[in-house]
Amino acid sequence: MRPLEGITVLEFSQFMAGPSAGLRMADLGARVIKIERPGSGEAGRKIALKNLFLDGSSLVFHTANRNKESYEANLKDSEDLERVKKLIEKADVITHNFRPGVMEKIGLDYKTVQKINPRLVYATVTGYGTEGVWVKKPGQDLLVQCMSGFANLSGNKNDNPTPVGAAVSDIITGTHLVQGVLAALIRREKTKKGAWVEVSLLESTLDLQFEYLTTYLNDGNQIPERTERGSANPALGAPYGVYKTKNGYISIAMGSVLKLGETLNCEALLEYTNSESWFTNREDIMVILRAFLAEKNTSEWLEILEANGIWCSDLYTYKQLLDHEGYQTLKMDQKLNLLSGEEVHTTRCPIRLNDERVYSPKPAPRVGQHTEAIIKEFNL
Amino acid sequence: MRPLEGITVLEFSQFMAGPSAGLRMADLGARVIKIERPGSGEAGRKIALKNLFLDGSSLVFHTANRNKESYEANLKDSEDLERVKKLIEKADVITHNFRPGVMEKIGLDYKTVQKINPRLVYATVTGYGTEGVWVKKPGQDLLVQCMSGFANLSGNKNDNPTPVGAAVSDIITGTHLVQGVLAALIRREKTKKGAWVEVSLLESTLDLQFEYLTTYLNDGNQIPERTERGSANPALGAPYGVYKTKNGYISIAMGSVLKLGETLNCEALLEYTNSESWFTNREDIMVILRAFLAEKNTSEWLEILEANGIWCSDLYTYKQLLDHEGYQTLKMDQKLNLLSGEEVHTTRCPIRLNDERVYSPKPAPRVGQHTEAIIKEFNL
Repeated sequence: MRPLEGITVLEFSQFMAGPSAGLRMADLGARVIKIERPGSGEAGRKIALKNLFLDGSSLVFHTANRNKESYEANLKDSEDLERVKKLIEKADVITHNFRPGVMEKIGLDYKTVQKINPRLVYATVTGYGTEGVWVKKPGQDLLVQCMSGFANLSGNKNDNPTPVGAAVSDIITGTHLVQGVLAALIRREKTKKGAWVEVSLLESTLDLQFEYLTTYLNDGNQIPERTERGSANPALGAPYGVYKTKNGYISIAMGSVLKLGETLNCEALLEYTNSESWFTNREDIMVILRAFLAEKNTSEWLEILEANGIWCSDLYTYKQLLDHEGYQTLKMDQKLNLLSGEEVHTTRCPIRLNDERVYSPKPAPRVGQHTEAIIKEFNL
Repeated sequence: MRPLEGITVLEFSQFMAGPSAGLRMADLGARVIKIERPGSGEAGRKIALKNLFLDGSSLVFHTANRNKESYEANLKDSEDLERVKKLIEKADVITHNFRPGVMEKIGLDYKTVQKINPRLVYATVTGYGTEGVWVKKPGQDLLVQCMSGFANLSGNKNDNPTPVGAAVSDIITGTHLVQGVLAALIRREKTKKGAWVEVSLLESTLDLQFEYLTTYLNDGNQIPERTERGSANPALGAPYGVYKTKNGYISIAMGSVLKLGETLNCEALLEYTNSESWFTNREDIMVILRAFLAEKNTSEWLEILEANGIWCSDLYTYKQLLDHEGYQTLKMDQKLNLLSGEEVHTTRCPIRLNDERVYSPKPAPRVGQHTEAIIKEFNL
């Protein structure tokens, strides 16, 4: 039995943050029913990476919405709305990411819905919270990475601010939504009452930087500086970073510069006897390391460094990674068979339970695929 | 009542992934007791950003371990170990990130501990899982970002692989640990049985890339390419990216290149009538935009673009962000008063519950600060 079996989630959420939360709850055994507008369905069906579409929806939609059902409803139609309210009576969780005010207009805001189902956990995602000057600003991953200061943490000193090329704001927010929902479900066992759980892309992306923000707030409001080249964490001393080798790259994490100097037989490093200089003189140390590490292949360096317990790694492309025995041991892949006959090759839930990997091969639904069955089942 | 009140977590975890999970459970109301080695305590006490320490532990430790207690125990001492086992009898959750084999030697592996307390949720963090060629490799954030392919998603085309300058692998793994633990606690209400929840930095960091990996696996194993400049997501078409303006930067998210051309009055963009070209000709489009956007200040562009519903944002430094009315509305800050009299200024939990922000001003413990009280309370 998967841990969330018996929990029903109605997902009004669109795009990535909310649906990624629904995906994880589905992975863990919840029944997740997407409430989709008739015809076009969830807006995320049209958001594609590399313009890749299958069976009318983007490939990204297919992986983020696997293992869910779809119920078609026009929330502006009173008959449809009544049915949805009946469904809410029976549900455990709702998630949505409408802008503040939209659910109030429809009559599905927390206060109203709480009366229909006091045990409901009502979970909302916004861009920037529910009040203040940014309330109407689009809650979108790149914008939040840029506004939250997160884009200043990656890349090198003279680079533009460098956002992460993946939807980390969306995804971290989705993980916080799941945390809040599950915690509220645990409390419900005792109190018999639901809760309102709110997350926002901005607050979650600030939390992702809690180490940095804390450093900033306690260190005279100084901005962490990226290093000239190979920057991997502006607030850490050398050798922390990425270095070019003769045939590729190598990363070296935190550790003693002296031990590194001895291990590499690199005399210039042995002058940095004061460990504070590893931070204050990090640019000089990195210059020495760049020149030194360019002389041999990555695998030669790894062998020397690993034998001496220094934390380092190769930098793999997806091809190198997926071909590697270490990756294959994980058995991370799974395949979904779409109604169209097409196949989606994707990854599984990252959490293992009782020593078993969690796969969910059920594909994402077509818009309204389960409407009729759900109407019958719940007698709507 | 906070949702996890009544839940006791024993945190054997060190560094960031496990402790960040403990922090979130403490935020949500759990009682989190760190089990620390006598004297030096958790290894994370010595890991600092910018060499910042307060009261003998790093500033980062103070924020990641706020709102926890500390119980000192030498797990190699039989008397201490017996007491810890008694504590485990009464606990709901254990987390640890020892390398595979260590807890087996001590006699606190899942199978053994399950006999002491069948209701226990036993949660473990590893670097790369519990088997295979990488089992002995250090599970460290930078190394995992580099090995997992994640470092290839950020930065520009001709840059080195660019890791994110924050511990995103650790933190995303910690969020998955919390998800697994809370889901297992929900099931426990029905089954009266605990569970073993496992996460690894590598699997969690692969999951963070699930959109990309899925794209790669279904698109002829092609590597997503970063753009020449302003790259913000290698797999999205123009205008998605970051652009220099006359006095700073601006980000523009996904949307119609034609609408953007009309809004900006930028004729060169109007030639891209085929929406597929927004991806295939993205470098050309970005060249046009770079030249065009350099002509005015960020605020002027934002005014024009926002008035026309185009998704865009400024790029704030921490100073600009923290001074902004939009940030101040969030009330994201809190202060912790240490026993030493020093103060730590940090951020709060990103999840809001029943329309209330969650603050936890209790500071991180000193090593063993609560040992005596816990021995008495639990009659160890």
